Amino acid sequence: MLHAVIMAGGSGTRFWPESRDRQPKQLLRFASNRSMIQATVDRLKGLVPPQRILIATNVKLAEPISRQLPELRDDAILGEPCKRDTAPCIGLAAIRVSQDDPDATMVVMPSDHVIRPEQDFQEAIRFAAALIEASPERIVTFGIRPTYPAEIFGYIERGERLGSAPAGFESLVAYQVRQFREKPKAELARQYVDSGSFYWNSGIFVWKAATIMRALAAHQPEMYEHLQRIANAFGTPAYDSVLQSEFAAIRGVSIDYAVMEHARDVVVIEAPFDWDDVGSWQALARLHGADEHGNTVLGKHVGVDTSGTIVRGPQDHLIVTLGLRDCVIVHTPDATLVANKHDEESIRQVVKLLQEKGWREYL
Amino acid sequence: MLHAVIMAGGSGTRFWPESRDRQPKQLLRFASNRSMIQATVDRLKGLVPPQRILIATNVKLAEPISRQLPELRDDAILGEPCKRDTAPCIGLAAIRVSQDDPDATMVVMPSDHVIRPEQDFQEAIRFAAALIEASPERIVTFGIRPTYPAEIFGYIERGERLGSAPAGFESLVAYQVRQFREKPKAELARQYVDSGSFYWNSGIFVWKAATIMRALAAHQPEMYEHLQRIANAFGTPAYDSVLQSEFAAIRGVSIDYAVMEHARDVVVIEAPFDWDDVGSWQALARLHGADEHGNTVLGKHVGVDTSGTIVRGPQDHLIVTLGLRDCVIVHTPDATLVANKHDEESIRQVVKLLQEKGWREYL
Repeated sequence: MLHAVIMAGGSGTRFWPESRDRQPKQLLRFASNRSMIQATVDRLKGLVPPQRILIATNVKLAEPISRQLPELRDDAILGEPCKRDTAPCIGLAAIRVSQDDPDATMVVMPSDHVIRPEQDFQEAIRFAAALIEASPERIVTFGIRPTYPAEIFGYIERGERLGSAPAGFESLVAYQVRQFREKPKAELARQYVDSGSFYWNSGIFVWKAATIMRALAAHQPEMYEHLQRIANAFGTPAYDSVLQSEFAAIRGVSIDYAVMEHARDVVVIEAPFDWDDVGSWQALARLHGADEHGNTVLGKHVGVDTSGTIVRGPQDHLIVTLGLRDCVIVHTPDATLVANKHDEESIRQVVKLLQEKGWREYL
Repeated sequence: MLHAVIMAGGSGTRFWPESRDRQPKQLLRFASNRSMIQATVDRLKGLVPPQRILIATNVKLAEPISRQLPELRDDAILGEPCKRDTAPCIGLAAIRVSQDDPDATMVVMPSDHVIRPEQDFQEAIRFAAALIEASPERIVTFGIRPTYPAEIFGYIERGERLGSAPAGFESLVAYQVRQFREKPKAELARQYVDSGSFYWNSGIFVWKAATIMRALAAHQPEMYEHLQRIANAFGTPAYDSVLQSEFAAIRGVSIDYAVMEHARDVVVIEAPFDWDDVGSWQALARLHGADEHGNTVLGKHVGVDTSGTIVRGPQDHLIVTLGLRDCVIVHTPDATLVANKHDEESIRQVVKLLQEKGWREYL
């Protein structure tokens, strides 16, 4: 059966002042009236029933997330007591899934991307499941055709095209993966894009839970032992303390390092859906478009001689701009950001400054 | 005896979003923890007692102004039912003052300028009173030495220096006025400043109430009749309705046109005090100075790569700026302005747009 694991551990400082410690990007609404994580669950409707969805996240976010997702099981949230990168979290989820369903197939996906339309996403996941049906130890990834030489994404180089596509998926294509590449510098990114054989790594995977567990057992035996101890404590009174100590003892490593480098049968499906990682406020302009002056407004705004500007605020606070170019303005009840669009990266610096000042109320 | 009339009719749209219909510039705090009009009254302390101070203003502002100035007489506020420029308002005030004190000398002054230090201001007013003592039909004005060729002020051209300064005022100088000039274009303003004999018109006048009444009776007989009818109704139950109808019937005209052009003995004292008309948000930088990046901050602010910027907001709302040059940011509970400093004039356009949209709550 198909299960889903949604990775929701991100802290999302880039969306300050809207994102805060207890309300990171995945809990915010950017593209619709549903939060990113709600939209991620919605996207699975008809494909994976709510009782087969797990959320892996920071334990601090367990409560706000479960409030947004009342349709999930009470024990659907795997709260990680500390950050240990993606491999331990995926491994723990795989063990939990296979406790219920030893033959489970898992979709692993981030909680903070916009993917549209849903039916194309579901079609691609069904294709992946069919490819695994045909070859159960296979790992399936999804590649996004790059639209520019991005330095902020990992890349997947494709190899040979898979010969025999399962019936019913003729509009989709899959390739053997030649290699995964980390975020490249500009020059290399340009070469990747020009070559025509590189995709952006969407961070979505499909595999049998058993496959990923075997891979972790083989290549990360220490990690696997810690995870097994946690899994064994599940449902017992000792669970919290076992999770706390065993998870903390794991050496953090990404799933790419832990598994992908060693896996043999890895396949990439060329994503038939639109994908946006909503990496910064500029994503609002991509997701919502812009008016004739290049402005994207989500909120109450009056602009005079304003262009290329993103305005984001509630309907009960008026934002007026005069003579502005390429700015981002984000208003929240206790803090307002006014930034040059091209300096958005420095938001991290702001969050650091706020930490240094000890202004917890804004974090 | 010395009386004071404070002109407080301005609507101050340039300070939107802080200034609103019921809370214009003169009621706001820019330079200290006292509002502009409170500071104007404070400036008279020891010179004119509170019971000899009148405030001429729009009737809508009578209540908020009297709330800010509890020390004044209950009938200290002359509420004008409509805008009729400065001459009718000064004329009405003069009649009211002379009802109590036929030999009164009046200081007429705007409510929305910053003047410092107070003792230099008081010294200049005492000098003016002494000059009038010496020549009772004299009109005294105050000229500000121009620091740049401003197009936004009227100018006063000085003539001959007054020969016999009253004893005790040796550090002050006064001249006969040659002519008053309206706000000039850049080229002409440059000539004025280069000549060395022009001052900015501070809008502060000292004269006998009888002098200005005689001048209005002679040169604006119709206006004078309306004003007399209002004055006669003062203290009777008919006052409000008489004021309403008679004031509305007056043709609006400025005191410069109505009186100054015809007056013979007009004198200008070179102001010994610092003067700022606080004409726009940029005044905050003049009044409060700027930090090493050229930023002026009144409120809670964190700036990264920000310069030449004015930030104004309450202490309980954080404003963060990133990569900004020469901006003005003003935060109020229901509206925030983000403007290029050099486009500040367009605030008027914003207020017009808000009127067109019928967004009364922001006006």
